[in-house]
Amino acid sequence: MNEKSRRSGLLHAGRPSPTLEDLATAAGVSRSTASRAINGGLKVSPEAQAAVDAAIVALGYTPNRAARSLVTRRTGSIALVIPEPDARVMMDPFFAAVITGVNEALRGTDMQLVLLMSRAGDDSARTMRYLRGGHVDGAIVVSFHEADDWAETLGTTGLPTVFIGRPWATGFGVPYVDLDNFEGGRLAARHLAGAGRTRLGTVAGPADMTAAVDRLEGWMQGIREAGLQPGPVVHGDFTTAGGADAARTLFSEAPELDGVFAASDLMALGVIDTVRGRGHKVPEDVAVVGFDNHSLLAANGLGLTTVTQPMVDMAVTAGQLLIRAIENPEEQLEPVIYPAELVVRGSTAGHSR
Amino acid sequence: MNEKSRRSGLLHAGRPSPTLEDLATAAGVSRSTASRAINGGLKVSPEAQAAVDAAIVALGYTPNRAARSLVTRRTGSIALVIPEPDARVMMDPFFAAVITGVNEALRGTDMQLVLLMSRAGDDSARTMRYLRGGHVDGAIVVSFHEADDWAETLGTTGLPTVFIGRPWATGFGVPYVDLDNFEGGRLAARHLAGAGRTRLGTVAGPADMTAAVDRLEGWMQGIREAGLQPGPVVHGDFTTAGGADAARTLFSEAPELDGVFAASDLMALGVIDTVRGRGHKVPEDVAVVGFDNHSLLAANGLGLTTVTQPMVDMAVTAGQLLIRAIENPEEQLEPVIYPAELVVRGSTAGHSR
Repeated sequence: MNEKSRRSGLLHAGRPSPTLEDLATAAGVSRSTASRAINGGLKVSPEAQAAVDAAIVALGYTPNRAARSLVTRRTGSIALVIPEPDARVMMDPFFAAVITGVNEALRGTDMQLVLLMSRAGDDSARTMRYLRGGHVDGAIVVSFHEADDWAETLGTTGLPTVFIGRPWATGFGVPYVDLDNFEGGRLAARHLAGAGRTRLGTVAGPADMTAAVDRLEGWMQGIREAGLQPGPVVHGDFTTAGGADAARTLFSEAPELDGVFAASDLMALGVIDTVRGRGHKVPEDVAVVGFDNHSLLAANGLGLTTVTQPMVDMAVTAGQLLIRAIENPEEQLEPVIYPAELVVRGSTAGHSR
Repeated sequence: MNEKSRRSGLLHAGRPSPTLEDLATAAGVSRSTASRAINGGLKVSPEAQAAVDAAIVALGYTPNRAARSLVTRRTGSIALVIPEPDARVMMDPFFAAVITGVNEALRGTDMQLVLLMSRAGDDSARTMRYLRGGHVDGAIVVSFHEADDWAETLGTTGLPTVFIGRPWATGFGVPYVDLDNFEGGRLAARHLAGAGRTRLGTVAGPADMTAAVDRLEGWMQGIREAGLQPGPVVHGDFTTAGGADAARTLFSEAPELDGVFAASDLMALGVIDTVRGRGHKVPEDVAVVGFDNHSLLAANGLGLTTVTQPMVDMAVTAGQLLIRAIENPEEQLEPVIYPAELVVRGSTAGHSR
C-alpha cells in the first residue's frame, strides 16, 4: 500500500468503501487518470471522465474532498463573484452575457463554475472568506464597487484572479478585461454634438464603479472638445427603473435638454420612458444614446443608438486569462482592453427642432 | 501540541504560517470559536466572526481547507442548482426571487450560497460530481427537467437536498416546496369560463417540468368541469419570446380562440404581443391569464390576471428546510405545498364579443 492510499484508508477508517484502485479498474483507466477525473480539472479526456463517472455511480464511490485536495490542491472549480446584494441585478442581460462567456471559456475543461453573490445587508466578508478558504482554484470578479477592496484583498492572497472591469486599485497585479469606457463616453458626446444637439445631459452609472467613472470622464471630455457647456449629471444604478428616476431629476434640473447619454442600455430605456411620460418624443425632442448594445434589446426593435460592449467576448477572454493564471501562476498577465464603438440607430436620428 | 495542530503542522510542513492558536489569541476568542469562524457555519456570533476575520487579514492567516474539513466535515456553503444551460434564463424574475428567498433563509447564519448552472452542450454530470464531491453541505435544486434524475442521484448520495418544485421521482425521500400547480391551472380555466370565454387554448410550460405538467392537468380538469371542449395546447419555454412563438402556433391552429392561459407571466406577455400583432385586442378579443404574479411585472402596469406563486416565500421555506436537513440528518421532512390563488386584473375584463 503506497502513501496516498494509506492516508485515504486512514480517513475512511472502518468504512468499507471502494478504493481508488477499484474505481480505476471498473472505469478501465489508470489510477492517476481516475484521480484527476474525480478531482475535476483541465486534463482529462471526455471519454475517460464519462467512464469514471459511470464507475462512481456503479460502485457507489464517494470521493473524499479533504483527502483529495491533500493530493492535488485543486478543487476543479472557479468562482464568478458578483458582489451585488440585490438578486434582481441578475435580470440585467449583462450577467447572462458574462456567465455565457465564462462558460464558453471553460468548454473542453472540467472546471465547475460557481456563482457567488452578496447577501442583502452584508459586507463582502463572507464571500472573501470563502475565496480565501481554498474552495476554488481561481476567481473572476465583476460588477464590483469601490468599497469592496476586492483587488487588494484577492491580490494579496495569491488566489488566481481576473477582473472584468478596471479594478479600483491596480497596484496588486490583478489582470483584468475591460472596455475603453472613456472612449465610449467620448464617442457618445461627439455623436450627439455632431447631430446638432447642444443641450446635453447624462445619466451616469454608480459613482463607485470604475466603468461608470470612466464613461463619465470620456463624456465630459467629448463635450469640451465639441465646445459645448457641460450639462447636468445624475447617477443611476444601471437599471431601467433607476434610469427613469434619474432622468426625472435630470429634466427637472434642465427641462430644455435635447440630448441624453445613459451609461447603460437599460437606463436608456428608462430615460426614453421618462421623455415620453413628459409628452416629448425620441429622437425629435430628445436624442438618447445608451451603452452596452445588448443583443436582446436590439432584437426588440428599440432602435437605440448605443456604444458596443462585447460582453460575451470579454468574458471569454477573462475565463481564458484565469485558466492561464491557474496553470502558470508565475506568468505576468497584462490587462486586455476592448475598443469602444458607436452603433447609430433611430434614437438619435435627425436634428433637434 | 495536540492532535489537531500536529496534523495542521504536517500539512504546512516548512511554511512559517500563523497557527490557529495565534489567530484565536489575536481575535480574543476561544480556539474552538476561531475554528468554527474559519470553517463557516451556523453557530458563530457576528461579533466573533468579525474579530476572526480581522485577525485573518492582520496575520495573513491562510486556513487550509483540507485540514479544516478533516476536523469538521462542514464546508460552510450550500448550493443552489439551476440546471439550465442558457444563462439568459437568469433574466427571468423567477430566479431573482429564488435567490432572494434562499439568502433570506440564510440570514443570521454564515453559510455561503453558491449558484451552480449547467453549461451549454453539457449533461448534468459535472454538477452532479461537484455535489457528490463534498464541496457543499447541502443543495437546493430548482428548474429541473425530467432527464436530469436529480432526485434519484442526490437522494442516494446522502447529501441534504431540498427541491423547489415537485421532483419527478418522489420515492427517494427528498423534501420539496411546491405550489399547488394543479389547482392553479384549474383556477385559470374556471375564471375564463366564468368570464364567458368558450374557445380556450393554453401555452403550457416545458413538458419535461413537473410544474408545467401539473398546471396543464389542472387546466384540462377545469375545462372539463366547465363543460367546454379542451382546446389546443402548445408548449413554450417559460420566456416571453417562447410565449409569443407558441401563441403564433396556437392561433394558426385555432384562430377563433377567445381565452388563453399561459403557464408563466413572461409567456403571457408574449401571448399578448402576438394577439396585438394579429390586430386583436386584450381583453376584448382574447382574454389572457398568466402564472407567477411577478411583482416586477405587476409594477409595470400590465394589468395581467395571473395565478400567484409566492416564490420568495417558497424559497425562504426551502432554505429553512435545508438548514434543518443539514442539522438533523435523521429527521424526515415533509413536502410543503403553497395554495394557488387567482389575482384578477384587466387582461380578462369583460366578456367575449
